[in-house]
Amino acid sequence: MFKVTFAFEDGSVVETYANTGDNLLEIAREANVAIDAPCSGNASCGKCRVQLKSGELNSKKTLHIADEEFDAGWRLACVSTVCADVTVLVPDIASAYKSRMKVADLSSREEIAIFENAKREIVFTGIQLSNSLDVVEVEMDPPSLDDTMPDNERLSRALRKFLNIKYVRIPYRVLKKLPDVLRENDFKVKCVLRTTPNDMFVYDVFGITEDVTVCGLAVDIGTTTVSAVIIDMESGKILAKASAGNGQIRFGADVINRIIESQKPGGRKKLQDAVIKDTINPMIRQMCKNAGIGKDRIYRMCVASNTTMNHLFAGINADPLRMEPYIPAFFKTNSLFASDVGIDINQDAHIIVAPNIGSYVGGDITAGTLVSRIWNRPEFSLFIDLGTNGELVFGNSDFMMSCACSAGPAFEGGDISCGMRATDGAIEACVIDKETMEPTYKVVGEPGTKPIGLCGSGIIDVISELFICGIINPKGKFVREGKRIRHDQYGMGSYVIAFEEDAGSVKDVEITEVDIDNFVRAKGAIFSAIRTMLNSLDFDVSMIDDVYVAGGIGSGINMKNAVNIGMFPDIPLEKFHYIGNSSLTGAYLMLLSTQAEKKTYELASNMTYLELSAVPTYMDEFVGACFLPHTDTSLFPDLAERMK
Amino acid sequence: MFKVTFAFEDGSVVETYANTGDNLLEIAREANVAIDAPCSGNASCGKCRVQLKSGELNSKKTLHIADEEFDAGWRLACVSTVCADVTVLVPDIASAYKSRMKVADLSSREEIAIFENAKREIVFTGIQLSNSLDVVEVEMDPPSLDDTMPDNERLSRALRKFLNIKYVRIPYRVLKKLPDVLRENDFKVKCVLRTTPNDMFVYDVFGITEDVTVCGLAVDIGTTTVSAVIIDMESGKILAKASAGNGQIRFGADVINRIIESQKPGGRKKLQDAVIKDTINPMIRQMCKNAGIGKDRIYRMCVASNTTMNHLFAGINADPLRMEPYIPAFFKTNSLFASDVGIDINQDAHIIVAPNIGSYVGGDITAGTLVSRIWNRPEFSLFIDLGTNGELVFGNSDFMMSCACSAGPAFEGGDISCGMRATDGAIEACVIDKETMEPTYKVVGEPGTKPIGLCGSGIIDVISELFICGIINPKGKFVREGKRIRHDQYGMGSYVIAFEEDAGSVKDVEITEVDIDNFVRAKGAIFSAIRTMLNSLDFDVSMIDDVYVAGGIGSGINMKNAVNIGMFPDIPLEKFHYIGNSSLTGAYLMLLSTQAEKKTYELASNMTYLELSAVPTYMDEFVGACFLPHTDTSLFPDLAERMK
Repeated sequence: MFKVTFAFEDGSVVETYANTGDNLLEIAREANVAIDAPCSGNASCGKCRVQLKSGELNSKKTLHIADEEFDAGWRLACVSTVCADVTVLVPDIASAYKSRMKVADLSSREEIAIFENAKREIVFTGIQLSNSLDVVEVEMDPPSLDDTMPDNERLSRALRKFLNIKYVRIPYRVLKKLPDVLRENDFKVKCVLRTTPNDMFVYDVFGITEDVTVCGLAVDIGTTTVSAVIIDMESGKILAKASAGNGQIRFGADVINRIIESQKPGGRKKLQDAVIKDTINPMIRQMCKNAGIGKDRIYRMCVASNTTMNHLFAGINADPLRMEPYIPAFFKTNSLFASDVGIDINQDAHIIVAPNIGSYVGGDITAGTLVSRIWNRPEFSLFIDLGTNGELVFGNSDFMMSCACSAGPAFEGGDISCGMRATDGAIEACVIDKETMEPTYKVVGEPGTKPIGLCGSGIIDVISELFICGIINPKGKFVREGKRIRHDQYGMGSYVIAFEEDAGSVKDVEITEVDIDNFVRAKGAIFSAIRTMLNSLDFDVSMIDDVYVAGGIGSGINMKNAVNIGMFPDIPLEKFHYIGNSSLTGAYLMLLSTQAEKKTYELASNMTYLELSAVPTYMDEFVGACFLPHTDTSLFPDLAERMK
Repeated sequence: MFKVTFAFEDGSVVETYANTGDNLLEIAREANVAIDAPCSGNASCGKCRVQLKSGELNSKKTLHIADEEFDAGWRLACVSTVCADVTVLVPDIASAYKSRMKVADLSSREEIAIFENAKREIVFTGIQLSNSLDVVEVEMDPPSLDDTMPDNERLSRALRKFLNIKYVRIPYRVLKKLPDVLRENDFKVKCVLRTTPNDMFVYDVFGITEDVTVCGLAVDIGTTTVSAVIIDMESGKILAKASAGNGQIRFGADVINRIIESQKPGGRKKLQDAVIKDTINPMIRQMCKNAGIGKDRIYRMCVASNTTMNHLFAGINADPLRMEPYIPAFFKTNSLFASDVGIDINQDAHIIVAPNIGSYVGGDITAGTLVSRIWNRPEFSLFIDLGTNGELVFGNSDFMMSCACSAGPAFEGGDISCGMRATDGAIEACVIDKETMEPTYKVVGEPGTKPIGLCGSGIIDVISELFICGIINPKGKFVREGKRIRHDQYGMGSYVIAFEEDAGSVKDVEITEVDIDNFVRAKGAIFSAIRTMLNSLDFDVSMIDDVYVAGGIGSGINMKNAVNIGMFPDIPLEKFHYIGNSSLTGAYLMLLSTQAEKKTYELASNMTYLELSAVPTYMDEFVGACFLPHTDTSLFPDLAERMK
């Protein structure tokens, strides 16, 4: 056995032991050390870079590591095996995906504005903000020798009388605490109820003097990031909010790699644990602590996520999703309860799942569509969710069509050498001086935070600026020279946005031709999907009234730049609206409003799905869109004007 | 720490460690060594006798241990504390209550006759033997690119079409296995369903070629003994049968002591574990093994037991049962599932609980009443369940009244120095020669089994014979002399049925005046309850058409002897019927037949309850009945004839 030490930039270490020949990336996974591996360890993405500090590693050399980097100890973990005691540095950027959990400061209006807006705006569609959860006070006559009704019937009788409902269900966990709560409170109690016109479910019972807030939990499970809010089910107030990297990241960056990993022995459990035990439950604990809420007071949960994520969340075989004819186990399910999957809230809590409409258009999109309100207007709107997959919905109050394209993780910083999520240290906006080619950038975090990488909106800005300044050509190749422009031994060009000495990490923050190529293919997938879907409906981009952009790309997304690089169609900028994480906002609305929940099921049933790969012209559209901005520049008339 | 060794007659030992001053009975409980302690350790019953073999004990001397016994090393565990390394012998009789699990040999017709009879006879009342559980075969069209319905909707669609039912519920555990089962079996499956006119619950799904038996589990949880059968839910066939001592015995012999123990810290969990983990689950495992059944194929359970037992089984606070106004948490509950209480069968299995009608008349009596069919005849019948508590039901198809009396554990061998359950080694019948005073007895077990104690029916015979032979007087005192009759230093008489050399244990099998006194008080409780209840209704014993006797007293009960000692009224012997463990038989019927289940709820609702302690004459009746046969011998005219 050899000792393997993972050292981090903050000085902390994780030590473990391994045998000769053990793979370093696997060792890291076992030791719960997050090293990004979007390609799931087949040496194709080059993100699992670590630096040898002492000892030895048996490493293959790859194109991702330049000679001088190799000499400086840089290795890819996925092609390194152990042959001696070893210490490696895991740079921050290598685990930027798996960023630490971030609990939002709710005193900032920004954090809650999006929910407040969504709540206000959904009401205009006629949807009422009420749900079936309630707290009621019940006073019973204490039993006597003349009135020997047992506890459960006594409570049922009082509730039936009070609410004029026929059937009362008292579950085991409530029955179990009933004798004590009744007697300690002289048969005066508060009940947490779910009432429907026909029956009533008693979720909980407390003494009448106890202060009872009925809470709900909305969670957006993104392939890369998990976000959640705990809310007061009565007022809809946000009580706590947090986000964290999806713990499944260490099993691959995209859904296909995750599904493959889940098929290995014990894999389904591992993937489920990674998202529930390692990600969501710690978020719940921290949020409850911050908000001073008991976990058991969360009586309902709503999950919005893509189809693969909700299957893996539920521990259900997702393999059929990736194989023709691509059939999920469920679109809708009513059968999930907290106790089934080990979510650490009240164990009787029902888990609502935003409905999927296919293997590649999931509940995150139906929830997001609810928020976009494109279903409530006669005008034609386009809803775009930029996640690890890109999904589109186009339509109005009469019809809606959806489609999905595999954009890859580039919008969230994946597949980009210095890419990262829109969290502390991420460059989220950038301007480049056309003459000096010097950048000016904005970094996420406290003032003075040094840059360690680029998030989606930052990448868009950098590529757009490089293109507009004539530093790169429409193919994304560097065509100017300067101190920030370098070429490696293979001739691959790159542009340094922040040199190591200005950066917050051990490495320059740069963008390479490979990065640009990856990003261009991602934006090309989106643009060609828009064109293909509109064409199939005989629509033209000029007929789009509004574009709603959602996703973790960052609120700083510069729509002009996104148009410049040919990601979005060249239509008036005022038509674009960034609506943030609409999957989470949708889950919030479904949790808060029974009518919103029903509406989402209705939207899912009524939405048609366009399988892009079945449209013969899609591939041509895609190839044309893999340029800056496009092979057909006539599609971008305004841009041509700007470039002059 | 001292080493404490418990040695058993079969040569096995259990070793544990304890500190100075630790109580030996507590140490035994912790080490899971069964030492009977009906009085729960307050030195009043004298049953926790152990023999010091080496080392030392700090023991109080009590009346229960004679001087020469003390010199021979006999001690009561409950008043002994550890002061050195010590080895004690635990005689078989001290753990006779906690007898080993006994799995019935179903090739014996006797074992199943009672269920076959009950099944046949209940049909004459108009009750149908059908339940809502079914196995159906379902063939679906496999999905294709043109038919992309998800797995759960595909199955629901097929089931709805097939059975013309609107609402199909697929629980999480089934959803989880659905994708694999469907694909491995080309979308041809068998489903285990519960169907009602409005909805359907899918309990399980299997490949169409699999052999699926839908099983049910009926359990009678007696205070002393737990009995169970696993049945085929379609045919009602008994697939396995077992009984074992209730693991709660080590926390006291009667319900009051159990409730008190359950109130100690962690006590509720301990008592629940004792009956579920230590008793019922091992029985299930053994029965399933013997019958070759998977535990997960048991989809429904029915529990019949007294109110305290079903509360402790469910882990629900039973303390209010023993305190005025004696209010249980439930009479009926629909809320128990296998997963709630950790019963090791299919985790979605519903647990039906035979309804209680009060704190002291529980589901064992309502289930037993169902079996007795006294509710289906115009003639007046009396149903008597001789358990640790004695319960009576009197009535006919027009009315029923119930009452309960605390008989104590004497009928099951408790409170009797050589008492034991009706299991191997128990003397179950006895005749004494009037001249020689020599006994002839019958022992439970293989031919040649040596006696180690007396079960209920054996005690009745011995007392009746001693009385008829004039060896004891109506007060239960010895009035003849002989080699089998002894008096100890305090003058207490006893009669030896088997001397140590003829016995299967280390001790004579005898009956003492204290034993007789205990038993006489138990039978007096029953007789006075019968009289008080009939009086309250203005009925006379002569108006009783049939008496149904149930309980663990032993199938060998000699009704004539029971009348001789004044336990039952002196009416023609052909009116008495022993119906065995009617609580288990009733649970079996409730499990098998939805109509029988409903009927039992109906019986429970319609039965009135007489609180004996509220009847002023009850105490006088009881005092009069504490003689052999009674202070008023005119009540036993036929006996007077026989005594001549």
